[in-house]
Amino acid sequence: MGYRKGAAAERELMRLLWERGAAVIRSAGSGNSYAPDVVAIINGRAVAFECKAWRKSELFVRREQYEKMVEWSRRANTPVFIAWKYPREGWFFIPLEYLEEKEKHYGIRIDDVKRLTTTVDVILGKQGVLF
Amino acid sequence: MGYRKGAAAERELMRLLWERGAAVIRSAGSGNSYAPDVVAIINGRAVAFECKAWRKSELFVRREQYEKMVEWSRRANTPVFIAWKYPREGWFFIPLEYLEEKEKHYGIRIDDVKRLTTTVDVILGKQGVLF
Repeated sequence: MGYRKGAAAERELMRLLWERGAAVIRSAGSGNSYAPDVVAIINGRAVAFECKAWRKSELFVRREQYEKMVEWSRRANTPVFIAWKYPREGWFFIPLEYLEEKEKHYGIRIDDVKRLTTTVDVILGKQGVLF
Repeated sequence: MGYRKGAAAERELMRLLWERGAAVIRSAGSGNSYAPDVVAIINGRAVAFECKAWRKSELFVRREQYEKMVEWSRRANTPVFIAWKYPREGWFFIPLEYLEEKEKHYGIRIDDVKRLTTTVDVILGKQGVLF
């Protein structure tokens, strides 16, 4: 995805989280250190998001990138979700573990995403799942 | 402080936190929404930092900026510290409440900072204070 489209998606996700009462921070994404695109914090608990605005039927994350996400999640003891904004369908929030290991990357198909994933309200605790 | 100096201080703080085992994120700091410069997360708990690299004897934060920090801290239920890097003395971590309200800003003198504040090890829980 292009930089612009990605940044716009990140800002939209930030608004979404802010409107639901969370404090949010968007990653500068510069330098050599990895951090997720967006982190939301509410009630002292954090949840992190890597944003994707892809139109394809399958989403990919390079192995190296995926491993950095896992490491960050482990350090923080905080869940990292792939936040996939799918055209005309809205946001899907995919736990890292849902991605399948392929030869050079990790991936998941949109069909599986729709079957498996959850909504932002679940993530932000309207149903008390994560926070 | 200039942008470069500020960004360099932020990166140094990130390294410091990362070396102590935390996951870290540096704010893009763009657009109209406020977020602290750096957030560290460890054991699922977040701590936020607003970086200052000032050589003066007193540190100031504009009232509007201070109020945004307080609001962010309240939403996140997460402490926000002013991380003041003082020339040839290193980092001081100042809880927001330590700043005194003045006419148009909030401020604190370096003498009071030295008397009152704590180290990054305390913040990151080597002594179990915050996490």
